[in-house]
Amino acid sequence: MNGFGRIFRLSIFGESHGPCVGVVVDGCPAGIILGDDAFEADMRRRQGGARGATARREADVPIVESGVHCGRTTGAPILIRIANTDADSASYADVARVPRPGHADLVAARKFGGWNDPRGGGHFSGRLTAALVAAGVIAKHIVEPVRVRARVLEAGGRADASAAAREAARDGDSIGAIVECRASGVPLGLGEPFFDSLESQVSRLAFSLGGVRGIEFGSGFACARMRGTECNDLYLDAEGRTATNHAGGVNGGLTNGNEIVFRVAVKPTSSIAARQRTVDLETGRRVSLSVAGRHDACIGLRMPVILEAVLAVVLADFTLLDAPRARGGGAPHGARRSAPRRTGR
Amino acid sequence: MNGFGRIFRLSIFGESHGPCVGVVVDGCPAGIILGDDAFEADMRRRQGGARGATARREADVPIVESGVHCGRTTGAPILIRIANTDADSASYADVARVPRPGHADLVAARKFGGWNDPRGGGHFSGRLTAALVAAGVIAKHIVEPVRVRARVLEAGGRADASAAAREAARDGDSIGAIVECRASGVPLGLGEPFFDSLESQVSRLAFSLGGVRGIEFGSGFACARMRGTECNDLYLDAEGRTATNHAGGVNGGLTNGNEIVFRVAVKPTSSIAARQRTVDLETGRRVSLSVAGRHDACIGLRMPVILEAVLAVVLADFTLLDAPRARGGGAPHGARRSAPRRTGR
Amino acid sequence: MNGFGRIFRLSIFGESHGPCVGVVVDGCPAGIILGDDAFEADMRRRQGGARGATARREADVPIVESGVHCGRTTGAPILIRIANTDADSASYADVARVPRPGHADLVAARKFGGWNDPRGGGHFSGRLTAALVAAGVIAKHIVEPVRVRARVLEAGGRADASAAAREAARDGDSIGAIVECRASGVPLGLGEPFFDSLESQVSRLAFSLGGVRGIEFGSGFACARMRGTECNDLYLDAEGRTATNHAGGVNGGLTNGNEIVFRVAVKPTSSIAARQRTVDLETGRRVSLSVAGRHDACIGLRMPVILEAVLAVVLADFTLLDAPRARGGGAPHGARRSAPRRTGR
Amino acid sequence: MNGFGRIFRLSIFGESHGPCVGVVVDGCPAGIILGDDAFEADMRRRQGGARGATARREADVPIVESGVHCGRTTGAPILIRIANTDADSASYADVARVPRPGHADLVAARKFGGWNDPRGGGHFSGRLTAALVAAGVIAKHIVEPVRVRARVLEAGGRADASAAAREAARDGDSIGAIVECRASGVPLGLGEPFFDSLESQVSRLAFSLGGVRGIEFGSGFACARMRGTECNDLYLDAEGRTATNHAGGVNGGLTNGNEIVFRVAVKPTSSIAARQRTVDLETGRRVSLSVAGRHDACIGLRMPVILEAVLAVVLADFTLLDAPRARGGGAPHGARRSAPRRTGR
Repeated sequence: MNGFGRIFRLSIFGESHGPCVGVVVDGCPAGIILGDDAFEADMRRRQGGARGATARREADVPIVESGVHCGRTTGAPILIRIANTDADSASYADVARVPRPGHADLVAARKFGGWNDPRGGGHFSGRLTAALVAAGVIAKHIVEPVRVRARVLEAGGRADASAAAREAARDGDSIGAIVECRASGVPLGLGEPFFDSLESQVSRLAFSLGGVRGIEFGSGFACARMRGTECNDLYLDAEGRTATNHAGGVNGGLTNGNEIVFRVAVKPTSSIAARQRTVDLETGRRVSLSVAGRHDACIGLRMPVILEAVLAVVLADFTLLDAPRARGGGAPHGARRSAPRRTGR
Repeated sequence: MNGFGRIFRLSIFGESHGPCVGVVVDGCPAGIILGDDAFEADMRRRQGGARGATARREADVPIVESGVHCGRTTGAPILIRIANTDADSASYADVARVPRPGHADLVAARKFGGWNDPRGGGHFSGRLTAALVAAGVIAKHIVEPVRVRARVLEAGGRADASAAAREAARDGDSIGAIVECRASGVPLGLGEPFFDSLESQVSRLAFSLGGVRGIEFGSGFACARMRGTECNDLYLDAEGRTATNHAGGVNGGLTNGNEIVFRVAVKPTSSIAARQRTVDLETGRRVSLSVAGRHDACIGLRMPVILEAVLAVVLADFTLLDAPRARGGGAPHGARRSAPRRTGR
Repeated sequence: MNGFGRIFRLSIFGESHGPCVGVVVDGCPAGIILGDDAFEADMRRRQGGARGATARREADVPIVESGVHCGRTTGAPILIRIANTDADSASYADVARVPRPGHADLVAARKFGGWNDPRGGGHFSGRLTAALVAAGVIAKHIVEPVRVRARVLEAGGRADASAAAREAARDGDSIGAIVECRASGVPLGLGEPFFDSLESQVSRLAFSLGGVRGIEFGSGFACARMRGTECNDLYLDAEGRTATNHAGGVNGGLTNGNEIVFRVAVKPTSSIAARQRTVDLETGRRVSLSVAGRHDACIGLRMPVILEAVLAVVLADFTLLDAPRARGGGAPHGARRSAPRRTGR
Repeated sequence: MNGFGRIFRLSIFGESHGPCVGVVVDGCPAGIILGDDAFEADMRRRQGGARGATARREADVPIVESGVHCGRTTGAPILIRIANTDADSASYADVARVPRPGHADLVAARKFGGWNDPRGGGHFSGRLTAALVAAGVIAKHIVEPVRVRARVLEAGGRADASAAAREAARDGDSIGAIVECRASGVPLGLGEPFFDSLESQVSRLAFSLGGVRGIEFGSGFACARMRGTECNDLYLDAEGRTATNHAGGVNGGLTNGNEIVFRVAVKPTSSIAARQRTVDLETGRRVSLSVAGRHDACIGLRMPVILEAVLAVVLADFTLLDAPRARGGGAPHGARRSAPRRTGR
């Protein structure tokens, strides 16, 4: 349930107001340099995304407690813990009784028989994305020299995302956003047929993030209104280069060597100061709720570095998976690894 | 790679022009009635979707060769084979040498060292969706009384999808489409946290289908331009009922009891009669290609019953997964299974 | 349930008296030569094992229906079907009502609510090992030049296994056996820590075979009576060569370059002509049963080629898994791949 | 690699001389009472097994850092950490250069390119069994009222295991042992066909333990010398009760309601004070080695509580897996759940 990956495997844990969040990263190659400051830049980017809101601020220093020795990965599972130093349960005291609209509060309580940790959303908190970002740092090392970059395209429909977020916060409200992620330098052929297509695994990971409501690759939803003559990316050479990239770098679930491009739609933060209708689960009566906690007005602003982790983690797993079978079919059995030239059949 | 599911598990196989396509369905409960005609209606719907094109027509009769005895499932793996009776390799003769733009031809050849079966796209053919539809028929039995239904919302930007497809076919071209899938009667709490959220698994399966370029749940991409006060679904009662359904029936990755709603964007069929630029992999020279085979002008038209299978398969796996843990926490350990009422903490 | 493997993955299916047994092999490298006669030798060895009994004889010709093109694997899933041509349900008519002692008849009926296929043991039949042998043939190709060989050490406590089996058959009885399997030429380092140790996966597969009651590696149970000075294999050189092989070729779950050696204990065939006490499930009364079907007097005699498949399948999966991480840690990150020489720390 | 389980899932981590060892337990039902002292008894039993040796002694207090709230499991992943408080690397300083015979030192260094943590065996240390015992405590709660118990049958071939271990320690040597584990009150039908048979999963887990060289169920290797008339357990009634239990409680991979019985052979501790031949990996020369660290003279003495954890973890996973399919086939589809009575077919 909380695991991902075939070779590069994550097992994520933690709650918003427990001692920590974190992840066990298994299947990581040995010998990768992972110094004490390896995580700093990306962790800071995740926090820095919290513009336009009185957001929770934590040191967010990932502590590596296994799988690294003398500054390098050992091949053993890597435990990464990130302490929760700034948890403030006071503002969440009523969550178990009065569920926040748009949140998992009510469904989580029902699914787990009322035994879930309701403080700050518990295990369903966006705080767990800190663990994912830490795993992404390792994944980025594995996929080198592939370069993964994401950015906010718009928030609340406007290009100036920060201003839009500030404005919504002023109204005690929140806004959604669209975030785009790209990877360049990707080798041709990563991904697997059918259930493990590149889009399958990227979307699986992206939808594990609270607030993501849609994802599209390449020209995405716009393809639905195109004709084939317009949408097909025509080949320029035998390396598979194309003039356009409507496919977003993926054909048949496999990378085609072009830039990978995908976008996600992020909904407005559910926790807002403005009063909303909800119910008191104890009395069954309708009540109104203003969520006073420290929330981002636009969770989309934090998303870029998180989506980079999503893509890097998927590419890392496929990178480690891909190599042997190409070789397996190649060297020992005489299979040709160059361009297929099978005439006369 | 070609497997899906934790308990209700699929293992899919086959090629477009080989003897058959099919699937092994493991983990199916015993005792489900599965008569000889169980698959007929959905298989016919998949074929009937091929309007507006001189499409390939096959009997498409799934043959069950294991796991069913006396008309009921036995609990053992179910092998379903669907013979390829109408394969015509003639029109695909050059695919290995001259890859079709927008297809997996080139990347598959490279990934598998030139040893892939190139005829009709081989394992990357849309023909494998016949196997998925057959698995979906079984899944629909498991999730009863949940009702899953999908339909084409638009093709080529127009409501009259059939007319749009016919028109494109007349031009030797193709069009994209948007298809919506809904499930009603879904119990609250299906799905798992994080990597196995309902959206994660549905999107994983949906993107295994050739041509799907985007997916959105509930209000999807439109959420990106909403404010929180607008997007949050307000609770009407302690059962979690809401007046709106912007969430598309899912909160925090778990079903909330509302209708599940998602839409996919399907690109135009890549194989078209109109001449397109591509390359001859043997000579490295640019050539032009007109794909003469029998292709749908709009693969989106076949999608509804396939997306129903996608959603039913995911719901079946979650249904079988969910039950024991709710009870595990309940009966033997005194956990309360009714609405959570935890005051005074 | 019926699946095995992380990269080289099997999904097994079929019943004793259904149309066929078989397996889907996913994750096989492309380009492996797999001609029509590839399976013949091992399939015949499995049948030839049935000495000393009026055993069921079938052509046992594996038919490959996907994943192979022009005589080579394509990288797509390989469906292998083996038709049941000699099934004779007559002698099993009462199995559902009068369970055979030592068989799965009773527990299977209970587990699957009475819906299991009881004919000939249904899915619990030894006939499924034919599918495993076929998968083993492919696995042996992948692990080349590793050589896997098994033989019967004793049956009924005697070295002349055939004579012992004939004798037991004459008495309407059956005997057990001990079978040993070895692999030479195994590279150092296959296997994974902890739950995926080489012994873990070999034993998991071995115990999937009906009749296996014990397994031991190297000196096995005899180690329990040794002292450390006697049991430790002392190193002769920096390549890890040792004078003795009490470890059976595995240290810490990883192959050490020595010959892999393991033995399994196989119980006597449960189905025997001699009258045994059992119960009539309908009346609840005790009855006596003589199983008249065509059974081996010693299933251990068929085991060698099946155990070879077990070991080859495990080694194939580890071989495909191992390569990338060694390289991942090596080339791109400067890790040394030769003998570790880390002084001065 | 370091993960186990389909629903009740473990992800184990840690090194002998790193900050901690531990495990993430995912898929645990919500509502299980897990107080601060829940682990104490079993952790102490694991330590108490270290008789007859100057063994390492640590507080071994498992700290739960997620997945438990108000003294009960929440349904979220449970992180359990056990600090290494008594690590003393001094005596292991040369391990990376001079591998200990019988240990994973040499193969681990080669597999991971020399980047593994060699101190105390690193990730290959028996210290990780502390994490498994902690997971076993939770598993025992899930399988209640099943009762799991293990004990040492013999050490060095003698019934008085403690005396035998003391004696070996006095000689600077070590001894092996045989340990037996039993579970009573097990419901009929746990386990899955073929690759997930009960024996398959128990043996997989048992062989993840350093030092285990063999495993047998019921009469095990003795079955190899029995006849069928002797080995078959005859039914006494329609509930499947039998007079004998040669099968060790398992038929066809499924529990049959009898006591589960298995035994493992544990080799003598590899680390001994007596001088042994090995090699210096830097110079390639043969040297002799006396391992001065604090080691058990008989690791078998610690095994009982660890094997209990092995069996409890497997039974917990099967218990959570089994329920839904029995019901799935039952209630909604009219399948009979009582004794199968299928006449007239």
